[in-house]
Order: sequence, then structure tokens, then C-alpha cells
Amino acid sequence: MSTFHVELKKVVDDSYEIEVGYALEQKLVDDILHGLVGKIKKFAVVTDNIVKPLYADKIYELLLKEGYQADLFVFEAGEKSKTRETKEQIEDAMLAKGYRRDCCIIAVGGGVVTDLAGFVAGTFGRGVPFINYATTLLAAADASVGGKTAVDTPLATNLIGLFNQPEKVYIDIAAWQTLPKRQLYSGMAETIKHACLASRELFGFLDSNMDAIYAGQREACEYIANKNCQIKYEVVMKDERESGLREVLNLGHTVGRAIETVSDYQLLHGEAVSIGLVAEVNLAYQMGYVTDFQRKAVISLLQKAKLPTEIPEYIDREALVKKLYTDKKVRDGKLRFVIQKGIGGVVEFEEGVFATPVSEETARKIIRNMD
Amino acid sequence: MSTFHVELKKVVDDSYEIEVGYALEQKLVDDILHGLVGKIKKFAVVTDNIVKPLYADKIYELLLKEGYQADLFVFEAGEKSKTRETKEQIEDAMLAKGYRRDCCIIAVGGGVVTDLAGFVAGTFGRGVPFINYATTLLAAADASVGGKTAVDTPLATNLIGLFNQPEKVYIDIAAWQTLPKRQLYSGMAETIKHACLASRELFGFLDSNMDAIYAGQREACEYIANKNCQIKYEVVMKDERESGLREVLNLGHTVGRAIETVSDYQLLHGEAVSIGLVAEVNLAYQMGYVTDFQRKAVISLLQKAKLPTEIPEYIDREALVKKLYTDKKVRDGKLRFVIQKGIGGVVEFEEGVFATPVSEETARKIIRNMD
Repeated sequence: MSTFHVELKKVVDDSYEIEVGYALEQKLVDDILHGLVGKIKKFAVVTDNIVKPLYADKIYELLLKEGYQADLFVFEAGEKSKTRETKEQIEDAMLAKGYRRDCCIIAVGGGVVTDLAGFVAGTFGRGVPFINYATTLLAAADASVGGKTAVDTPLATNLIGLFNQPEKVYIDIAAWQTLPKRQLYSGMAETIKHACLASRELFGFLDSNMDAIYAGQREACEYIANKNCQIKYEVVMKDERESGLREVLNLGHTVGRAIETVSDYQLLHGEAVSIGLVAEVNLAYQMGYVTDFQRKAVISLLQKAKLPTEIPEYIDREALVKKLYTDKKVRDGKLRFVIQKGIGGVVEFEEGVFATPVSEETARKIIRNMD
Repeated sequence: MSTFHVELKKVVDDSYEIEVGYALEQKLVDDILHGLVGKIKKFAVVTDNIVKPLYADKIYELLLKEGYQADLFVFEAGEKSKTRETKEQIEDAMLAKGYRRDCCIIAVGGGVVTDLAGFVAGTFGRGVPFINYATTLLAAADASVGGKTAVDTPLATNLIGLFNQPEKVYIDIAAWQTLPKRQLYSGMAETIKHACLASRELFGFLDSNMDAIYAGQREACEYIANKNCQIKYEVVMKDERESGLREVLNLGHTVGRAIETVSDYQLLHGEAVSIGLVAEVNLAYQMGYVTDFQRKAVISLLQKAKLPTEIPEYIDREALVKKLYTDKKVRDGKLRFVIQKGIGGVVEFEEGVFATPVSEETARKIIRNMD
């Protein structure tokens, strides 16, 4: 018997820039011309059928104009496309067009596109570079930092995927204005969540500027795009593999995800999170971590953002309580919640642990009291 | 317009041990008991239907005996199972059994099992640890070092996958004796390749000890298992992302892979590589890099290993020449070969470039002259 030691210690630099601006298609192509992805000349533009005519076509044409090889790979818009099957279709289409290891993937769209295309990039030719061109507020808030990519399967959400960092992210604020209003509002929920858990300053800004943001006022949109990146970065940086601190990003999501599922996806993710934020700020109030004034301020901000703050009538309350147990924070069969602390903070239950055990009875009461 | 810098520079330590020995099932479980994968208590044992009763069942039972949760995930033996479909089936079966992020995958088998299971591990829950228990000479020579995992698709071999390093590799020499003889011989081709390109010492050892190895003599088998790891490690270490030096491992494979495909997989990979090594040592001789004595020594060693050294009659020679162009070393439409230099060396064409351009006429002549 003998052992052989394989020494593989190295410094990895996955740093990248997030550029926030207005109609950045030309800037993206200019960056490529100036060597963003080295000498690569083949670009797979991955997008969905809604974003394609709005932004992806333009990027595709600009790439061709500069003499690059480019192709569009388009799938049907929506969470239902975030599957292994769609990944396979993109891969086969890329292979059929002769794409091998010397290519770059450009994801153009919202969170579904960036999640899926980032995953494709991570396993195509054992990894090719990718660029995210984020066209939604939700992608700006959620998908630009953290490197999480994944698909859903019939049995689990976001469980097949990998951590993969892009070469660069573009957040196109102009694109927010072309979103259906309901989508835009829904995307605001994650921004409000960031404010609740980490930034009283952002909370105040949102409270004063919601109309300006929804009207597409550039400075206001740029400010929240940057602030979202900063908050998520600070959390994720300190906890890249999702051990403890990253759990704080689950604020509003324990109840939110359960409502989303029990509603059978009649509620958009952000809408469900909005209701979850209300339920959980009520919980924090009951536990003495926020004042009634702060509690009402959160609810009022969500209303200002045109988000729902009540559990819809058709949701079975008891089914909702039961659904809480599928949350990934559940440990030893016990519910655990991230608890908001004032405006811009969360409770640290134990050192490095940000999910606090809550009895089923307490959770039930919170949900019942929202009636 | 504004930019936000995401700083993600860090030291990654993917180092691991390869243990070479005789019947290592108990050792594997002992290592887990002593913390090889931390506090993990759930083990997905991935294997094929041939290896299952021989080795995987035993590992599974030993794990249960120690109080771990373990399950067997079995697919049909053979290269044809190395697909995205099999990966999906394993994932779905794992999810159905409640596997989430807190598990470890143990791959038990040859190269197909370790390639596939390592890929599953890389994307399950965005990455869970995995352990390789290699039961074939080929896996010992080829799959233990390098971190390459992948599946095949209808349009490409090994093009969907990722680099993923195991927690530990076990090379079970006892298992070699249960291999069908043809498989054992085929596995020797990669070992001989390693000798030709990097070690005159290994070449001499193989020449003197082939019968002892094939008879399962422990010291001889341990020696070549270790030597294979060492050679592959030295090459791969210096070139983890397969830019230049790793190309030397392609010796014999330019012609070998083409023969394998044109034979429609009637030839095993190692058999095709053996014929490829002959073709390419003939090329090296013609170019003046090996003597006739060295050329004959290579052919004689392959024969001693009971490997084919002639192109089968049924192979269309011209189809073979054409097929050479699908090799991944082809650049600007020109064939490129790794050229053996004496015994235990290769030609460095330019600094850091180990693939030498060869005209189609020369390649054709080499193939025709083997008739």
C-alpha cells in the first residue's frame, strides 16, 4: 500500500466588474473589442423569446458588424424553461453550429436567462467564459452578485447547478422600462428586502423615490442598482459557499417561498416575498426586534411599491404552515427564520448563525393574524 | 454610468491523496470514519451493474454497518451510459431519496463511472464532495489525476462536463484481476503511452514485468499504478487548464481516436491507442526523432502487452485519413501530432507547443505503410 499526494493549491481570481448604465449594448461590444474575453471570436447569445427582439438582436447584430461569429440561442421565456432539457437544447444547438471551447456565452435577460446561461457556460467544454447582460430589476438585485447558477428539476428548485462567476455584468436600466409593470414591481421586492436587512439609507431612499424609480428616472435607478450590488456583495463576499451569513438574504423568503408554492405560482416570486416580508416583520415585532412604527414603515413601503401585503383569500392557511417545513433552513425538524432587527439589520442568533428557531405555534399565529 | 467592482480573489486548495493498494473497501470506510469528508453522513454510491456486485455492494454494506445513510445508484456498464440522460437519472434518484447538499458521492468503477459521478457531484446542490474508487487499470492510468469529468453527447465526446477534484482516490489493484482480459490489456495502452512520452524507466520496467503485472503480482502492479499517477500529475500540474503541455498526453491519440471512430467502436479505446502509438512512432522515426531500434522496441512492448499493432483490414484507410481532421489539435485546417522523441520524451515544436504540424501526405503515407 502506498499513497501519492496530488498538490493542487492555487490562487484563483474571479473578480469582475458590474457596469450600471443606460442602453449598454454598444458598450458591451466595445469592451469585447478591447479584450474583455481575450482573443475569443465566437459568441453564443443566449436569451428568451421576449428579450430577443428587445435587446439580444441588437447585441447580436453589433457583434456581426464587428466581424465576430455570433449566433442567437433562444428559449421560451419563463421559470418553466429553467430545466436540464433547455440546457441540453442550447448545448446541442451550440455543438451543431460548431461551438467548442473557444467561445463565450452572452446571457441577455432576467434571472432565468442568467441562471441558465451561466450554468451552460460552466459545463460547456468544461467551462467557457460568460457575460451577463441583465435586463430586469430582479436580475440587477439578485443575479448579478453571488455566482449562483442552476436549473430546476421536478423534485427541487435550483438544486442542479454550480457556482460560476461571469467575466462582466451589465445592468441596463433602460431595459427596466420595457418590463411589464407587474414584473417591475415584483423585482422591487428583493430591493426592499435588501434595505430591510442591511441599509436604513436605502430604505429611506426607496421611501422617498419610489415614483421616480418606477418612472425610470436615471439617477434613482442607478442608485438602487449600485446599492443592491453593494449589499449583496458584502453579504456574499464574506460567505461564498453559503454557510452562515448568506442566510440573511432569506429574509421574507421562509414565508414567501411557501406562499409562492401554495399559490401554485399564481403569485410572482417578488409578490410572494413581499407578503413574506410582512409576515416576518410582524414576527420580528412580536419578538421585540422592531417597533410598531418600523413594522408599519415596512408595510407602507411595500404598498408604495405596489406590492401585495396580505395573504390572498384562496391560500389555505394550514397548508401554508405545513409548507414552511420544506424550507432549507429547517434543521432537526424545527422551523428557523431570519429575523429583522430594526430597519437595516438582522438578529444574529448565535455567533455566525442568522436563522432563529421559531415554534410552529408562533408561526401559525403570525399567519393567522394577517387575516 | 457607474461601475461596481466585485473582488473575488482567493486561495483554493484542491489537493488530495491517491491511495494504491489491495482491496481498499474497508480502508475507504475507515477514512470516512476518521473525517475524510467532515461530518457528512449520507453517501450516494454510484456504480455500474458489473462493478456493483464485485465492489460497490461491499462498500455500501460497510457504510451501513457504521451507521451511515447510504444508497446505491446503478447504471448500465459501458461508454454508452456516459450521457446527460444517465446523469439526470442519478440526480432524480438522489433527490427522490432525499439527498440534498449535505451528502458525498462515492464513484466505484472504471473511467466511465468516475467521469460521470464526478460530473454529477460537481453540479448536485452546486457541488458536493466525491471520492473515486477506481477498479480498472485504465482508470488508474487515466482518470485518477487531472480532475476531468464529462459526458458524451450525440455530437461530441467529453464536451459537456467540468474540472472537479475528488476528496481522495483509491486504486484497488485486486480489482484489476476481475477485469475481462481484453479490458485489462486495453488499459495497458495508456500506461505504455506514459512510458513512451515521459519515462524510459517505466518503459524498461514494463518490458521486463508485463507477465507479472498481468498475473496480478502486487509489487509490480503498485509500481505501475504509482508511476502512472506521477507522470500524469507532472504533466497536468504544470498545465491545469489544458493549454499546451497537456497535449503531450495525446501521443498515439491522433491516429488512435480516428481509428476508434472509424472502427465504429469495434476496437476498445486502448486497442485503438495501441495502433495509434505504432503509427505515430513510425512518424517519429521518419522524422528522425526515434531510431529504428526504439521504434521496434515500442512495437514489441505493445505486442508483449497483447495489444494490436496493425490497422485492421476492415478499416477504410482514406476514411481514416479524413477522420484525422476532427482531432481537437487541428488548427487552421492543419493536422498536428505529438511526436515521440526517443524513449521517454516528446518533441517541443515551439516553446510550450507540443503538437507539430504534419502534412496530410505524410500522415497518409504513414497509414498506408502500415499495410
